[in-house]
Amino acid sequence: MSSSSVLEEIRRAEEFLVVGKGVRRIDALDKVTGRARFTGDFVLKDALHVRLVKSPIPHGRIIEIDAERALSLGPVRFFTAADIPGENQVGYALPDQPLLPADKVRYVGEPVALVAAPDEDLAEKAAELVEVRYEELPAVFDPLEAMERSDVLVHEDRGTNIAEMTRVRKGNVERGFEESDVVVENTYRTGHQEHAPLETEGAVAIPDTQGGVTVIASIQYPHLCQRITARVLGLPHSMVRVVQPYVGGGFGGKDDMGPVVSAMAALVAFKTGKPAVLVYSRRDSFTSTCKRDPSVVRYKTGATRDGRLKAIEVQIILDSGAYANRGPYVLWRATMHAGGPYEVPNAKVDGFLVYTNKVFEGSFRGFGNPQVQFAAESQLDELAERLGMDPLEIRLKNLLRPGSRTITDQLLESSVGIYEAVKLLGEKTGFRAKWREYRRERAGRVRRGIGIACGYHGISTSRGVPDWSNATVILGRDGSVTVETGICEIGQGSWTAHAQIAAEVLGVPVERVKVVGGTSDAPDTGATHASRGSSIGGIGVYVAARRLRERLADAAARLLECDPSDVEIREGRAFRRDNPDDYVEWEELVQAAYGMGYEMSATGYFFLPKGKFDMERGLGYAYPAFSYIANVAEVEVDLETGKVRVVRVWPALAAGRILNPVLVEGQIEGAIAQGMGYALTEELKFEDGRILNPNFTDYLIPTSLDVPEVEEPIYVEDLYEYGPFGAKGVGEMALIPTPAAIMNAVKNATGVRITEIPATPEKVYFALRRAGVVAGE
Amino acid sequence: MSSSSVLEEIRRAEEFLVVGKGVRRIDALDKVTGRARFTGDFVLKDALHVRLVKSPIPHGRIIEIDAERALSLGPVRFFTAADIPGENQVGYALPDQPLLPADKVRYVGEPVALVAAPDEDLAEKAAELVEVRYEELPAVFDPLEAMERSDVLVHEDRGTNIAEMTRVRKGNVERGFEESDVVVENTYRTGHQEHAPLETEGAVAIPDTQGGVTVIASIQYPHLCQRITARVLGLPHSMVRVVQPYVGGGFGGKDDMGPVVSAMAALVAFKTGKPAVLVYSRRDSFTSTCKRDPSVVRYKTGATRDGRLKAIEVQIILDSGAYANRGPYVLWRATMHAGGPYEVPNAKVDGFLVYTNKVFEGSFRGFGNPQVQFAAESQLDELAERLGMDPLEIRLKNLLRPGSRTITDQLLESSVGIYEAVKLLGEKTGFRAKWREYRRERAGRVRRGIGIACGYHGISTSRGVPDWSNATVILGRDGSVTVETGICEIGQGSWTAHAQIAAEVLGVPVERVKVVGGTSDAPDTGATHASRGSSIGGIGVYVAARRLRERLADAAARLLECDPSDVEIREGRAFRRDNPDDYVEWEELVQAAYGMGYEMSATGYFFLPKGKFDMERGLGYAYPAFSYIANVAEVEVDLETGKVRVVRVWPALAAGRILNPVLVEGQIEGAIAQGMGYALTEELKFEDGRILNPNFTDYLIPTSLDVPEVEEPIYVEDLYEYGPFGAKGVGEMALIPTPAAIMNAVKNATGVRITEIPATPEKVYFALRRAGVVAGE
Repeated sequence: MSSSSVLEEIRRAEEFLVVGKGVRRIDALDKVTGRARFTGDFVLKDALHVRLVKSPIPHGRIIEIDAERALSLGPVRFFTAADIPGENQVGYALPDQPLLPADKVRYVGEPVALVAAPDEDLAEKAAELVEVRYEELPAVFDPLEAMERSDVLVHEDRGTNIAEMTRVRKGNVERGFEESDVVVENTYRTGHQEHAPLETEGAVAIPDTQGGVTVIASIQYPHLCQRITARVLGLPHSMVRVVQPYVGGGFGGKDDMGPVVSAMAALVAFKTGKPAVLVYSRRDSFTSTCKRDPSVVRYKTGATRDGRLKAIEVQIILDSGAYANRGPYVLWRATMHAGGPYEVPNAKVDGFLVYTNKVFEGSFRGFGNPQVQFAAESQLDELAERLGMDPLEIRLKNLLRPGSRTITDQLLESSVGIYEAVKLLGEKTGFRAKWREYRRERAGRVRRGIGIACGYHGISTSRGVPDWSNATVILGRDGSVTVETGICEIGQGSWTAHAQIAAEVLGVPVERVKVVGGTSDAPDTGATHASRGSSIGGIGVYVAARRLRERLADAAARLLECDPSDVEIREGRAFRRDNPDDYVEWEELVQAAYGMGYEMSATGYFFLPKGKFDMERGLGYAYPAFSYIANVAEVEVDLETGKVRVVRVWPALAAGRILNPVLVEGQIEGAIAQGMGYALTEELKFEDGRILNPNFTDYLIPTSLDVPEVEEPIYVEDLYEYGPFGAKGVGEMALIPTPAAIMNAVKNATGVRITEIPATPEKVYFALRRAGVVAGE
Repeated sequence: MSSSSVLEEIRRAEEFLVVGKGVRRIDALDKVTGRARFTGDFVLKDALHVRLVKSPIPHGRIIEIDAERALSLGPVRFFTAADIPGENQVGYALPDQPLLPADKVRYVGEPVALVAAPDEDLAEKAAELVEVRYEELPAVFDPLEAMERSDVLVHEDRGTNIAEMTRVRKGNVERGFEESDVVVENTYRTGHQEHAPLETEGAVAIPDTQGGVTVIASIQYPHLCQRITARVLGLPHSMVRVVQPYVGGGFGGKDDMGPVVSAMAALVAFKTGKPAVLVYSRRDSFTSTCKRDPSVVRYKTGATRDGRLKAIEVQIILDSGAYANRGPYVLWRATMHAGGPYEVPNAKVDGFLVYTNKVFEGSFRGFGNPQVQFAAESQLDELAERLGMDPLEIRLKNLLRPGSRTITDQLLESSVGIYEAVKLLGEKTGFRAKWREYRRERAGRVRRGIGIACGYHGISTSRGVPDWSNATVILGRDGSVTVETGICEIGQGSWTAHAQIAAEVLGVPVERVKVVGGTSDAPDTGATHASRGSSIGGIGVYVAARRLRERLADAAARLLECDPSDVEIREGRAFRRDNPDDYVEWEELVQAAYGMGYEMSATGYFFLPKGKFDMERGLGYAYPAFSYIANVAEVEVDLETGKVRVVRVWPALAAGRILNPVLVEGQIEGAIAQGMGYALTEELKFEDGRILNPNFTDYLIPTSLDVPEVEEPIYVEDLYEYGPFGAKGVGEMALIPTPAAIMNAVKNATGVRITEIPATPEKVYFALRRAGVVAGE
């Protein structure tokens, strides 16, 4: 596919029949009727149920594992590190994480052994009876402390608890600060966040043909699960097939945990020759799966009197927990985005990923970016305050535009749109007037405030390594369409977007298209993460469908006796452009094309252009494109309880073509709710590394009553040349600025800056008290 | 793929590392260790078990179906024709066969309703309690009678019991007989044959995403099962996925029954939203699945004094049972092959397919050809007898050679080889000497005889409609290879042949290759029938693998700094042809190619050349190629019991490249055993349309003790230009001439011609008595 053909395509926006429409999700009926089947619904009659034996201590050597009592209960099977036929390694960025540790445990809840039995109760009971003797080791829980200590090491062989360091060195920061009229400096902190998917992590493994194994699992990247499972079992990749059924929410967590549960279930199936099912309990899901990395961000900003940013200096410390997992990439993304979506001529950013003896961290919607945007966007309001500007004004002065360069010095040639988005958002919300009014008022027990925050997010994963897309489109003999892709449907709606792309290109109704996705049988399409599912994943669908359309136009030309270039295929018919009454029905055309010998399936492989990135200085082509977001939040703060109620949020999104506004609204509303939970209530409490609240009674995610009214989004559709019909990523966007928008609104309401989230009522109350806004007892 | 590139490839026979070798079956370990899982092993915990309610009468109107008692048993679900949401039609060649009849039943054992319950016993019990009231109708069982009658019609709307007629009109038969010195005329009869797969027919259906259904079933063509299931459910094809697990034998029966059981299980799953499992009992497998069409063949042959065939006139009557199913195609194949593999200048063949009120017939290894070859090859021996020639001599005089034309006037340009095969076989077996000796001896209670018979078989299905191949080959990042194909592994070994083809082309060990086959997720590769699995199916694998090899050579050239044409990939390495020490390891090469952006999967689609066929006169391009076979059988006939023991069989096969001699030997041995059962013991007994012996106690398939010694096959590898490495079909071949070879040997031993099979001891004994070879009581 040449980029010119795409541009030609994406420009005929007005003509679209399917793309850009609020097409009903192709999984909607299954889900609302309860017909949808999830991993735990695929339990075979002769399956073994698998349970985890977990570490009760945060750090210690494994001295002995005694399963005698467990095995005496009945037909119980038992597996430790010693049973792993391949490599006992599930580390993602670094080879530091065993599937089951052989020597020591590094966090409370770490699985040290697996127990399997024909029924679930027996497996549970047996798991409880496994006795593990440990030699306890001193543990470290605070990342700042862990950075400094070399006497307590989570991974001895590394000699330090610092797992990874990153940097950006753009311009001359010293000079930048010298040239600044105002310098603001602050420290911001964010906490853990639990993904809390409706469906917990799980996998079913079934011995299949040729000595291989098929895994049905709750995942975000089948080919990764395939690779890691194959590694653990010591098999070639081809011997492991991974398939997703419906997945009840991912949010990044299942990208990281999918391979782990797949490998665990597959280990049992492989060793026993029987199907094995492992579905995490909600408690397992809290204690033994990755979370969002907590952060400490030290942020210094310099600007001129007229509000132009001159320099930033940022230090990012991420708490990785016991294993690096995706942490190095999370940190990298945090580092790349540390400047916010603004022109910053001089930037110095240093990132540190630090091991501690807590549950490991990993992928979570936003992937390091919410942490830094919370800091950057809070900081910007502080700067505006010092300059006597309003938050809208300072943003409009500094926002990235076409021709701008990011803090990694990446040139943004086109498809930006954040300036227009913020401008429109300011007008729609009447931001300035409200902001001034609430600031002036500040009276009564319940105070109202309004805040704005922006964000940007590199779609796909890069660092100069090109991303790619791949999908297969198959036409059935009845004219029905099957799209095969590795992209997973985790609730976000990518399969619907894929179906729309195929339907639009082929000129058929979307109901004709079925998506068979999330399977390693499809070509490797990369992961469903980094907001790349529909945007990058959709390119392959687009390319494959275009190939088929060309073949069909050729076949139609033979039937209509004209040139293929005169054929239009649209609304279920192929016709001569000069005479639409001379047509052939879609079904007839497909059948005829089959008969003529045309290949009626096609793969669409697309390798994105390569850019350069200098890892040493953190400069260059960080991402193929960015999506942009701005949220305005209106809040009420109850001074007596410290409770912050988010009344309303106005989002504005600049993410290229909106393939399906209903889906995108769903993503925006969900992201705002999740961002609000992150900002206000979701607090994972630890004591000596043990999670004190591993349940939804004590860990508070927003309920439907808590969720604010989300206004209809503003879309600035500044098209992306490689995206399908110009689309860019959407899924993570609205979460990213939400905490800062809320905290900026709290500041507007109360005059008090909250620098640490979650801003639970207690925290807010005491902050208000410290600031003298409410009186102490 | 141009045909010249294939020819270039297939000529370097000596260089092959994997093709042509007795590579171990890729399914061997699973099968010998019991790890292999079949359809019935995929029962989900919450599955409904489905049982059939079957007609006890051969012909009658359905007046009422009362399930009240059945439903009162508990959580029982019940389905009749009225519950079918789509089209109640599973007819293959003609639209004459309902999934569940709405109006009348046409054979004993026909399923009229389905019962489903959470456990098998309850389902079984409930099925027994369903009461169906019928108005009985007169029935017809004999095809010759059925042809004549119009008062008893199996399908009233057709006005006749003749379902199909075929013909061949080549040359001038009257003149041919006038010019003949000898004319021989006989009638030959063959009986039913039951496929008797180790695993009975069955399907598991699971509601899957987007309102669709996934079917795991014992099948031979996933895309056909997909189409028919979709038709029955009223869904687009894309909404039905069909996947095979291991299949315990097919022999054609599962090509026909796969769609039926798939549709039945899917109907229950679709209506209930629950997984449904239907596995036929052995009794169901006898009473309610298709068999080999019984035949009556009237055969008249004319030849000159020197043994040259001048003319044949053949009438073929096939008993179709209650439905046409594949019968029209079975009849067509029988008609096309009626002349045997001989040059016959004048031929007149008429075929009739006739409905009767017995279980319907269908696909079975040989597909109409064993019936006519039994006649043609028996007839040839009779002709030789009249001419005073030996059986070898008359065959060598008339066998097809390059440049010959078949009875449909199809020119055989190349890849014939039967003449050489028969010549070699005659020499190896010392046929002439033995034949004369046994003929001379004819003494004692146990008489020994030797017989020869030939056969040919058009591979793939044609009638001028081109066949095609299609497969996808995927390279994993670890260099492992996955082949995706619609071709099924039903025990014949096609997946192993596919793996060999991919391994040979890519230059890697066969252990690296996994075949994911028999799934509708793969591109439609056509059915696993007509001896086309490895031969036609393998073309797609070949083409796809070549595409990948080209890309890899390109990538390797960049690494080795040479021209892609100088790169050789072989034994897990890519190297410069001029300097083999300058190499890159396979894994490294694949990883590098991924990094460079090469598409590491490819589909191989190939559409065979089109030929012309005149349906009116039965002349033209009937098949893209033929395989050829000759068997010599040595038997002992016990005159007192009439029992024929086959002592030894010598096969000779001319089927192009032998991709894997161990697999081919397996096919030959199995086909000879099955052909021997067909010839001697496998007799389905009927009384008023009811099968009297629906079990393996009374229906006698050969046991391992009965199977003759099969000598090492003679292979004449006359390569086929489009076959992968020159291969043609193998699977059905050795069955085709086996009955005639045995009966010709019986004649040699006893002087008595047996014209009806199965030649059970009773039949042989009475034939010998009629002929006066043994005295009556």
